[in-house]
Amino acid sequence: MACGEFELIARYFDRVTSSRRDVEKGIGDDCALLGVPEKQTLAISTDTLVEGVHFLRDIHPADLGYKALAVNLSDLAAMGADPAWLTLALTLPEINEEWLKDFSDSLFELLDYYDMQLIGGDTTRGPLSMTLGIHGLVPQGRALKRSGARVGDWIYVTGTLGDSAAGLALLQHHMKINDPAVHEALIKRHLRPMPRILQGQALRDLASSAIDLSDGLISDLGHILKASDCGARLNLDALPLSAVLRQHFEPQQALRWALSGGEDYELCFTVPEINRGALDVALGYLGVPFTCVGQIAPQSEGLTLLQDDKPVEMNLKGFDHFGSR
Amino acid sequence: MACGEFELIARYFDRVTSSRRDVEKGIGDDCALLGVPEKQTLAISTDTLVEGVHFLRDIHPADLGYKALAVNLSDLAAMGADPAWLTLALTLPEINEEWLKDFSDSLFELLDYYDMQLIGGDTTRGPLSMTLGIHGLVPQGRALKRSGARVGDWIYVTGTLGDSAAGLALLQHHMKINDPAVHEALIKRHLRPMPRILQGQALRDLASSAIDLSDGLISDLGHILKASDCGARLNLDALPLSAVLRQHFEPQQALRWALSGGEDYELCFTVPEINRGALDVALGYLGVPFTCVGQIAPQSEGLTLLQDDKPVEMNLKGFDHFGSR
Repeated sequence: MACGEFELIARYFDRVTSSRRDVEKGIGDDCALLGVPEKQTLAISTDTLVEGVHFLRDIHPADLGYKALAVNLSDLAAMGADPAWLTLALTLPEINEEWLKDFSDSLFELLDYYDMQLIGGDTTRGPLSMTLGIHGLVPQGRALKRSGARVGDWIYVTGTLGDSAAGLALLQHHMKINDPAVHEALIKRHLRPMPRILQGQALRDLASSAIDLSDGLISDLGHILKASDCGARLNLDALPLSAVLRQHFEPQQALRWALSGGEDYELCFTVPEINRGALDVALGYLGVPFTCVGQIAPQSEGLTLLQDDKPVEMNLKGFDHFGSR
Repeated sequence: MACGEFELIARYFDRVTSSRRDVEKGIGDDCALLGVPEKQTLAISTDTLVEGVHFLRDIHPADLGYKALAVNLSDLAAMGADPAWLTLALTLPEINEEWLKDFSDSLFELLDYYDMQLIGGDTTRGPLSMTLGIHGLVPQGRALKRSGARVGDWIYVTGTLGDSAAGLALLQHHMKINDPAVHEALIKRHLRPMPRILQGQALRDLASSAIDLSDGLISDLGHILKASDCGARLNLDALPLSAVLRQHFEPQQALRWALSGGEDYELCFTVPEINRGALDVALGYLGVPFTCVGQIAPQSEGLTLLQDDKPVEMNLKGFDHFGSR
């Protein structure tokens, strides 16, 4: 891009809306300089979103700006971390000021909500894609990991499952719903997931393991089981399905989405029996439902799906990113 | 990409060659978990490299793996930081195991050299590009910034300038040299820049400002002048040109490359008069030449180029990334 074009892009992103005291130097030098408080551990995650793979080509830039950050925030939530700083590497096919304004306004709105600061980035010309680097802080020794689940721990999820996959099916015209309010609500669950930051922080001393649901419950719970050397019994009758999902779709379809639709960005976590009372108090305050959906079992049992207390077989695959991966 | 393909890619990058004590959790959870020692400041930079924009389409994957990391290390060098952790977001058009092996071997060789650890990343399918996030540590209050230059400070550069641009011209067949050893040497300067990490660290208490030379001396010195509200006098006769550049190219061509060719990844820094003796000792140990090329002037003077002590005009543009930006 021409030099002037880079300066134009910079205008949209070089806003100091939040001024965190731990940012000694933000955008504008070879590196950002950041202070990490004593007794805090740094949590870092990075995610790339490519047009046509991770988001549809006709997505509104405001939805894209929101979702790109939200899915990265979800990784921090799964560790129980407090969001702090973001880097954004943006590859654009062309300069479209309206697009840049909508995208950046939406991104900064969510950054401000979490008192985060954009500390650096890069802009290049090419097919639309972006890589976000997210940085959070968590008190030493209190981060949630995938590896702490133990036999007998209870398996929970936040919110409801499958709505995002239903929303995607509507966006892709694979499904149709006549009620416009329901249509909008499901699409919003796909485009505007709520990262469960507060829930993650509340779980710090209560959960034995946690992960965020990006690929679907079966696949993501599988990561906990693998990291923790465990199996699990999952009670399909207990899966939290939203009223709209139950009312407007076949039960089998709703179940499939809940198990393997992906992109719910809810948390899945395990809790030892002794912490269940404290859990009810800690998460109860936060207003988002949370549901016990199963129990950790010995590794030799693998993952068992139960309906009416009987094992069932289901042929499920993880979310396949618009069929292209 | 299919699940199996992701696992295949992961095999090439999930190597724990270095095991840093500050890495509590590396690859394999929602986030990496990292400890920052007391009284250290975190330095973070991110860079995207796109095929055809930042590197030629026929670049060898081993050269690409090296250079992608080296140019990011150069940003740490410019802050005086000690390299620590890397994230790598890689977008690949296809799975080519030979390519992955060469790329990752070369990347890990350089990571190991600096005792760095790859702590996370992401792999997606798309046109070849990559975004690296580099993290380093610098003692509190001792980072080199662009903003500290003062009138009267001396301007220095490390190494020699312009060789990388000459190497690129050879790679693009814009120029020709019959001596194969010289040809190789210049191409190597383009493909295998040496990040000046040790020099940056040695400058921590001596330099008043610093930047790394990615776009060319005129452009990058301009960033120091802007951040420091200063002007400068640059002595073109003093610019360090390599013997091969002097012998094989027209003086005007060599000078243009030295001033605006870009991608030298040397350091440009300013030093107050009182620190010049200490500078000679501190950098003298390190074996890389460093040269005084001018002096900081009042902002009202702007940037003056001098030849034979007389102001000269040159029509220069910064490095234009293969003409595409």
